[in-house]
Amino acid sequence: MTSLDTQLEIIRRGTVEIVPEPELVAKLERSAKTGTPLRVKLGCDPTRPDLHLGHSVILRKLRQFQDLGHHAILIIGDFTGMIGDPTGANKTRPSLTIEQVRKNGESYFQQASKILDSDPAKLTIVHNSTWLGPMGFEDLIRLASKFTVARMIERDDFTKRYNSNEPISLHEFLYPLAQGQDSVHLKSDVELGGSDQKFNLLVGRDLQRADGQEPQVALMMPLLVGTDGVNKMSKSYDNYVGLDEAPNDMYGKVLKVNDDQIYSWFELLTDVSNEELAAIKTRAVSDPRNTKHDLALTLTRMYHGEEAAAAARAHFVKIIVNKEVPDEIPEFTLQADSDHRLLAVMVASGAAPSISEARRLVQQGAVSIDGVKVADVATELGKGATVVLKAGKRTFLKLLSV
Amino acid sequence: MTSLDTQLEIIRRGTVEIVPEPELVAKLERSAKTGTPLRVKLGCDPTRPDLHLGHSVILRKLRQFQDLGHHAILIIGDFTGMIGDPTGANKTRPSLTIEQVRKNGESYFQQASKILDSDPAKLTIVHNSTWLGPMGFEDLIRLASKFTVARMIERDDFTKRYNSNEPISLHEFLYPLAQGQDSVHLKSDVELGGSDQKFNLLVGRDLQRADGQEPQVALMMPLLVGTDGVNKMSKSYDNYVGLDEAPNDMYGKVLKVNDDQIYSWFELLTDVSNEELAAIKTRAVSDPRNTKHDLALTLTRMYHGEEAAAAARAHFVKIIVNKEVPDEIPEFTLQADSDHRLLAVMVASGAAPSISEARRLVQQGAVSIDGVKVADVATELGKGATVVLKAGKRTFLKLLSV
Repeated sequence: MTSLDTQLEIIRRGTVEIVPEPELVAKLERSAKTGTPLRVKLGCDPTRPDLHLGHSVILRKLRQFQDLGHHAILIIGDFTGMIGDPTGANKTRPSLTIEQVRKNGESYFQQASKILDSDPAKLTIVHNSTWLGPMGFEDLIRLASKFTVARMIERDDFTKRYNSNEPISLHEFLYPLAQGQDSVHLKSDVELGGSDQKFNLLVGRDLQRADGQEPQVALMMPLLVGTDGVNKMSKSYDNYVGLDEAPNDMYGKVLKVNDDQIYSWFELLTDVSNEELAAIKTRAVSDPRNTKHDLALTLTRMYHGEEAAAAARAHFVKIIVNKEVPDEIPEFTLQADSDHRLLAVMVASGAAPSISEARRLVQQGAVSIDGVKVADVATELGKGATVVLKAGKRTFLKLLSV
Repeated sequence: MTSLDTQLEIIRRGTVEIVPEPELVAKLERSAKTGTPLRVKLGCDPTRPDLHLGHSVILRKLRQFQDLGHHAILIIGDFTGMIGDPTGANKTRPSLTIEQVRKNGESYFQQASKILDSDPAKLTIVHNSTWLGPMGFEDLIRLASKFTVARMIERDDFTKRYNSNEPISLHEFLYPLAQGQDSVHLKSDVELGGSDQKFNLLVGRDLQRADGQEPQVALMMPLLVGTDGVNKMSKSYDNYVGLDEAPNDMYGKVLKVNDDQIYSWFELLTDVSNEELAAIKTRAVSDPRNTKHDLALTLTRMYHGEEAAAAARAHFVKIIVNKEVPDEIPEFTLQADSDHRLLAVMVASGAAPSISEARRLVQQGAVSIDGVKVADVATELGKGATVVLKAGKRTFLKLLSV
């Protein structure tokens, strides 16, 4: 069993807030003592079937709980998904059919399982229509009686809208109750959510308390900032990196991350140790370009493995280098019967004044072919290809091998 | 068919507000044209099985609609009655069993039928648990989506409580929706209620409109002020006159009415014509005592018939007069063989100096026996009784006839 301190260190990483942390400590202690895993709840919205790195922040936190021996409960929020927004005003809450909800739920799980441990002993997947669907008007009145109007309006979003006379539909007060009832039904010990979900998570606490249960601890994760460096990652802002992206696409999209977010992406999206994180903090400022490549490599490796990640890296290095090649560069045609050894070609084409100078440049790492640094002085060029040779900082040559 | 003007005159009498009156006119016109009675809804609370004159104000208005050819729908509000106040804070909303609700509902109807026309062609009695009970969470969300939080808080009672930080339980927002849904279900044309019910009645309008129905007209009656002259009539203020009171109790309790309320009690509780009402307005000020007796007589007659009302009147006149009799008054014993004619007794006992003076007093209406004014100068006293004789303003005598 992992020690309490280590558990806490892992759990705390990247969190915005744990409410209340002493209760989490007590729950972890009791769990260790009794050998009973904590029940860690995460609700997901089945209206958006495509997951991206933004979603992975919380899924990874859930995975950490699993790795620490706790039990993850993933709730497919099909109940509200099927209702959608009854006023029709909210386009992001369309009304879904049971088939759509099921399909989205499966797709969600399939993508989430890249991150979660899907061992049934460590993961339960449930649909909240199971218990919310059969609730009647009478049950609702009893549920609602445990909550005051003022408490509901306190919610940041509602306060702003109420004070600026923007209409709040009455049913919007019922959704938090539905989500809170999930916690009552599942007897969750911890609920995870984005920092924008704090109120809903606390409703769960209140309703559990009203039901005579020990209330859950609310653990809030930050909203990942997307590649635009401004907004939270979202499909609608087109600033996202999907979990299902092909290796090259993933690598390339991650490279677009804003300098200011390099650190938090490492912190929230990868497993690099806290010591490495400290180094990354400095390096993200002194050498953002290469730190981004490291981030892209790390993430692509996580989702596609070592080999695909390395290939993606090579691909991007090449593309980027090609971008740096001036539009007009001298060409040098290499005859089929001439010497194809790199050092000889460099001298023949005029890229180096002598074999010894050519060797020195290669040994310094100042020579690249198609953006890939040449490591071996014995490198020989293939026949019939066209490549871009770079020697030193300024010398570019297009080598046409016939 | 009663003319539109007469219908309106009858319906308007005593109302606080009709919202909106032009729609009522249109509904009445269409009803007359198509021969379709209006559906007039009244919801009643089955937690209070004892009805009093305060309840009769609205029941009488409903009866007027029946008499004009319209159809009354009496809703026994058993749905909320069975739920009561889930917070337990509101003592006037206890949670009732289905048996209690049924029993109270029957008792309510039995008392209400003193006022309503219980011909099934003119009266439908329904229990709202029939349609509210099967409603699910999903239905509730759809219903609630038709309403805004701001609109709900606008309700006078809620505004005050919200602004003074008194808690409003969230379920209190659901009750008005339940009552409004009754109107949707019943497709009511008119709903009657006390002036404190205006908001609820308007919720019914809103929900009917959202459902694509023609909205009902809300007709509000004033809250009858009880015998204390201050609070609305209510069992808890002990200022009420029950519909089930025995004749003497009813008469006596009505007599306690405050001078200021004599007129409105006549207006709201009796059928005296509008012309008589005008006269009563003046007389309630110039001779409140006798006007109260007329009111007590009228009401007792309405609920117990002519004879019982007259007996109650005699009973009270006697009691009141006896109250005016001084504690210590002279006695005069009338021998069995002496003259029992009133004028002779008055002279023999010293109540009048002469037969002619005694006659003059009787003719002036200044003589009474046991509080009942003597009208006939030839009156003869019975044998073996003890009566109190009053002659003029000050002379009292206890006559013992042996």
